[in-house]
Amino acid sequence: MVIVMQAGAADSEIETVIAAVEKAGFRPWVNPGVERKVIALLGAVDAEKAELVDHFSALPGVERVTLISEPYKLASRRTHPDSSQIQVGPASIGGKELAIIAGPCSVESKDQIFKAARAVKDAGANLLRGGAFKPRTSPYSFQGLGVSGLELLAEAGRMTGLPTVTEVLHPADLEAIAEHVDIIQIGARNMQNFRLLQEVGRVGKPVILKRNPGCRVQELLMASEYIMLEGNADVVLCERGITSFENATRYTLDLNAIPVIKRLSHLPVIADPSHAAGDWRYVAAIALGAVAAGADGVMVEVHPDPALALSDGPQSLRPDKFRRLMDSMTQVAIAVGRQVATPHEQL
Amino acid sequence: MVIVMQAGAADSEIETVIAAVEKAGFRPWVNPGVERKVIALLGAVDAEKAELVDHFSALPGVERVTLISEPYKLASRRTHPDSSQIQVGPASIGGKELAIIAGPCSVESKDQIFKAARAVKDAGANLLRGGAFKPRTSPYSFQGLGVSGLELLAEAGRMTGLPTVTEVLHPADLEAIAEHVDIIQIGARNMQNFRLLQEVGRVGKPVILKRNPGCRVQELLMASEYIMLEGNADVVLCERGITSFENATRYTLDLNAIPVIKRLSHLPVIADPSHAAGDWRYVAAIALGAVAAGADGVMVEVHPDPALALSDGPQSLRPDKFRRLMDSMTQVAIAVGRQVATPHEQL
Amino acid sequence: MVIVMQAGAADSEIETVIAAVEKAGFRPWVNPGVERKVIALLGAVDAEKAELVDHFSALPGVERVTLISEPYKLASRRTHPDSSQIQVGPASIGGKELAIIAGPCSVESKDQIFKAARAVKDAGANLLRGGAFKPRTSPYSFQGLGVSGLELLAEAGRMTGLPTVTEVLHPADLEAIAEHVDIIQIGARNMQNFRLLQEVGRVGKPVILKRNPGCRVQELLMASEYIMLEGNADVVLCERGITSFENATRYTLDLNAIPVIKRLSHLPVIADPSHAAGDWRYVAAIALGAVAAGADGVMVEVHPDPALALSDGPQSLRPDKFRRLMDSMTQVAIAVGRQVATPHEQL
Amino acid sequence: MVIVMQAGAADSEIETVIAAVEKAGFRPWVNPGVERKVIALLGAVDAEKAELVDHFSALPGVERVTLISEPYKLASRRTHPDSSQIQVGPASIGGKELAIIAGPCSVESKDQIFKAARAVKDAGANLLRGGAFKPRTSPYSFQGLGVSGLELLAEAGRMTGLPTVTEVLHPADLEAIAEHVDIIQIGARNMQNFRLLQEVGRVGKPVILKRNPGCRVQELLMASEYIMLEGNADVVLCERGITSFENATRYTLDLNAIPVIKRLSHLPVIADPSHAAGDWRYVAAIALGAVAAGADGVMVEVHPDPALALSDGPQSLRPDKFRRLMDSMTQVAIAVGRQVATPHEQL
Repeated sequence: MVIVMQAGAADSEIETVIAAVEKAGFRPWVNPGVERKVIALLGAVDAEKAELVDHFSALPGVERVTLISEPYKLASRRTHPDSSQIQVGPASIGGKELAIIAGPCSVESKDQIFKAARAVKDAGANLLRGGAFKPRTSPYSFQGLGVSGLELLAEAGRMTGLPTVTEVLHPADLEAIAEHVDIIQIGARNMQNFRLLQEVGRVGKPVILKRNPGCRVQELLMASEYIMLEGNADVVLCERGITSFENATRYTLDLNAIPVIKRLSHLPVIADPSHAAGDWRYVAAIALGAVAAGADGVMVEVHPDPALALSDGPQSLRPDKFRRLMDSMTQVAIAVGRQVATPHEQL
Repeated sequence: MVIVMQAGAADSEIETVIAAVEKAGFRPWVNPGVERKVIALLGAVDAEKAELVDHFSALPGVERVTLISEPYKLASRRTHPDSSQIQVGPASIGGKELAIIAGPCSVESKDQIFKAARAVKDAGANLLRGGAFKPRTSPYSFQGLGVSGLELLAEAGRMTGLPTVTEVLHPADLEAIAEHVDIIQIGARNMQNFRLLQEVGRVGKPVILKRNPGCRVQELLMASEYIMLEGNADVVLCERGITSFENATRYTLDLNAIPVIKRLSHLPVIADPSHAAGDWRYVAAIALGAVAAGADGVMVEVHPDPALALSDGPQSLRPDKFRRLMDSMTQVAIAVGRQVATPHEQL
Repeated sequence: MVIVMQAGAADSEIETVIAAVEKAGFRPWVNPGVERKVIALLGAVDAEKAELVDHFSALPGVERVTLISEPYKLASRRTHPDSSQIQVGPASIGGKELAIIAGPCSVESKDQIFKAARAVKDAGANLLRGGAFKPRTSPYSFQGLGVSGLELLAEAGRMTGLPTVTEVLHPADLEAIAEHVDIIQIGARNMQNFRLLQEVGRVGKPVILKRNPGCRVQELLMASEYIMLEGNADVVLCERGITSFENATRYTLDLNAIPVIKRLSHLPVIADPSHAAGDWRYVAAIALGAVAAGADGVMVEVHPDPALALSDGPQSLRPDKFRRLMDSMTQVAIAVGRQVATPHEQL
Repeated sequence: MVIVMQAGAADSEIETVIAAVEKAGFRPWVNPGVERKVIALLGAVDAEKAELVDHFSALPGVERVTLISEPYKLASRRTHPDSSQIQVGPASIGGKELAIIAGPCSVESKDQIFKAARAVKDAGANLLRGGAFKPRTSPYSFQGLGVSGLELLAEAGRMTGLPTVTEVLHPADLEAIAEHVDIIQIGARNMQNFRLLQEVGRVGKPVILKRNPGCRVQELLMASEYIMLEGNADVVLCERGITSFENATRYTLDLNAIPVIKRLSHLPVIADPSHAAGDWRYVAAIALGAVAAGADGVMVEVHPDPALALSDGPQSLRPDKFRRLMDSMTQVAIAVGRQVATPHEQL
């Protein structure tokens, strides 16, 4: 159930509603950062009865009370009819400007991450990615540089002015990650590691939540609910390819998921064409397709020398190819009423 | 194995090569309609030996001889390095202009198909679709108007000047279809009905071959090979959604397949967002995504009154929504270096 | 809607009901071969109204009238509560005895099919399979011997006393197939070739309908409805593996489908472990699993010399391995209250 | 690379080999509990060179040296040709006796777990399952009793003499779980939570590793490698259904996976028909199919009163239905040369 306040409802009216919600035995969740406040009631869904609707509807300043039938509440567009926009330093995710998150799969060395950071910044990216803790299918593969990787990523971010994104694998690393990095990523393999979601939700940094390749959109929205319930509404969803029988590519980008998520949820949604394809030759086409279909941004793996990459080389773009993709993406963004933040011509 | 002739090779040189191929026990297949002739050798692949490469390479007018490792030969981009372009009356598929195929799922009445034809023509479509023989999951569902549906479709095509597309289900209907309609469609369910493919290949009309939702891209290319081997090179491939575990939409559009097919084959590829989504609310986003990713066109279900449609109503666009999609598609086409043939403003 | 007659209802009572059904504008379909007659009403489902239930319930000899909510009617267990049993010469499918259908993928020569037939008969199979018209993914692969293959299969059947099964690809071949073979198989790729289903339904021979690897159980049941509506109730369903992301095997046998089909439908269901695995090393385990889960039989590819097979060699069992599988299958059949018809010890 | 010692090689010979492996810069992993010792070399796979094979082959007591091409080494049947057998109190997993793990999804109360424990023990189960920490798709669902659930489970285990199994979600809970429970379960959603796998691997208790429904068999084997590398070879793999397009059941049991895993790995493999079906009506058929196909056991959800269950009620068996399943399973086990440990007749 959500209680939608009138535009311009007084703070005292909002407080009265909150108190009434608590008195009725529910936990109120106040929708952050919108003009028209929406207060969600969390608690036993069986108790969401017609009489409560009447009870809350009668309170001063309340415009209407709505039952939410979806299993997710805070992520639902009914709770928050406007699309959410998340600010991260100079960048914004979910607004008119596309979020272009680029960089190497893993931070491998100072030279590598600095070269990559400069290249993606020059091409027009507005966020820098780089993995320090790597979830590898094989225990014999490179597992990341750990904390020293975080430090290098932070340094590269400061150098270029780009906010940074890295993945968390284990609660024990959260503190170090939060200290060095601007956005915390939950990787596809941990999308349903619910305890990790809760701990990340308590950190108070924006989160990118990647869809597990074997999970439905509704499961992704339920996972975001775990983070939001801890008080963190700054969640960005990421479509990165699902499993299918097709083996010409590593995964299958679920393009449909982009308009589906946009209709069901107010959260921003981005696409990761690099993991969806597993092959750099298809990355540009998929990125452009995702933007045209309404994605709020893309996350692209770029490496100064993909042939030498310690992870995901085959799906990483060289800087010149990424620059060409940015040119096309700028055109497609305009065609669908969006824009790319800092076209590289102006840097 | 393909033998690539020099640009400007004399007809007599080509004939000599063909004779040599036949003498060696193979069936030659001459790539139609390109400046630089390419002659494919069909026959026992085990016999594709190095000595044959030397033998044919030495013939006058031959530029080079290439072994083709893919199981499909005629559909392979190696046989035909340029992208194929297929002319259908005033429309062209595979060139700079996008093919916009629109119309109702089924022809239901004269009034309905005429209204639909005018609406899609006005909005800028350049081809008219409409089913007369319908493959329905249930034998209790509307099965199409049959031959009278073909006649109405042809009449609507003549009225608007739009070439027409309809699906064939049974060899016995091929003659009537070929008489009335400009492009023959092989539906998804018949993609591996190999005998039907062969019979359609002998008709000599352009063919749209839809991907079966449970088949891989390579199987789609193999199916096109069945048609091409009969001497018909005018095949358009259509991605229309594959089966997956996601149930928020009816199928999952395999966006990756578009650049994959473009790399592997010279045949044009279009997308069908209506069947991929099964829900009109997602059709526009998916159509734009497919065009941005490089599709040569789209096939969209448009009905004058979807609520009354005898089939596929929930996934059909109303004319006004289709017109709005055409506006966006025009912009996205330009952004990726393509164009929409007849923007409705000019009609 | 189905009308269930009382046990021992008089023929005249049944005729009266049929006449009443026709008078009400519906097509009656009389459930064949059961003591308690069930008459299904085919026609506009919207017309299945409460008043009709009352009308038919009042007729003499009628026990009860039931609305059927499933989209399939004739295949539904509600229309025919007892499991169907189909007699084919000395063999029976759907009864206590398992149907063991074995033989090569393709009929390749007289020697090959005769050796295969003797081997499977000796091992205890009670039906002989062999393809004469082969649906091959590639047009360059062996396409079967055609009519001469049918003749060899029929001869091998007569020699061993085993009824025969072969696949139909094209309506034009139906007459020849019906003349030579006892059971007509609709292959997975033609499961939704609805016109072929209808034509096969009119032939009056038992049909094995294989599930398309991209189709749901409900779509399989809808396909069987197309055959049954033509008056042929002798349909055997076959689970042969579905597409999935797992690539350790060619397809994924959907074991769940066996109890699901048993609950929803009265039709017999068999499993094809050879196509599901695509690898002979897994065939025995899958066959035993299917029988334990309730399958009414299995269809297994057996070839006298798999290394020389013109199709499906890698998934074909050698005769000695098939014999060993029959020993295990005999034990598992007994464990679940079934039996294998002619244990090879007795031959 | 694995070094296979001669049967009866002296301890000193084994030590010499281990020292040589370490000197060559690799980490030796000694295969536990088999007569013929096998020593695996862990380390840079690129260094697995022919010269090393010769070097180690020449050492006294060495029978042969084999390169392992699979990405998993310790889980591979090449490292450990005999099937592994894991002892847990009176029960054993991987031997002739089937492991029958039964109990409720969640521990809900003392009365509930005691009733369930007695019922499954009486019916012939030899291990007791019960969740204390529950990974729920929705944060609004019952999340388990936590530590008090562990205590109740342990008490029920002591009362019945059944070893116990429970799932771990978070490293912080490992100590409490290890204290109270005999087998630690990694749930499907955490199969690729690699850090948790490592921590569980260090605990020194047998582990049941459930397959993620979106992961391939090879990914499951790679995940087991993470646990084994920490020194814990007592890993049991569990097939519990994969995602597919079929929606008649919640997941699709991948029956093929059972013989595939048996061929590739020495680890025991069990099946979970309850999660695979999501519907109690199909559980028995699937369980019997899995056993016939070679599973080393099954894990079945049994609840004294499924209608009141706080989780997974629809897929839980009532005790009487479980008892009937045990009767059938006993017969099928015998048919395939296995046995059920304690047929309930003897209790």
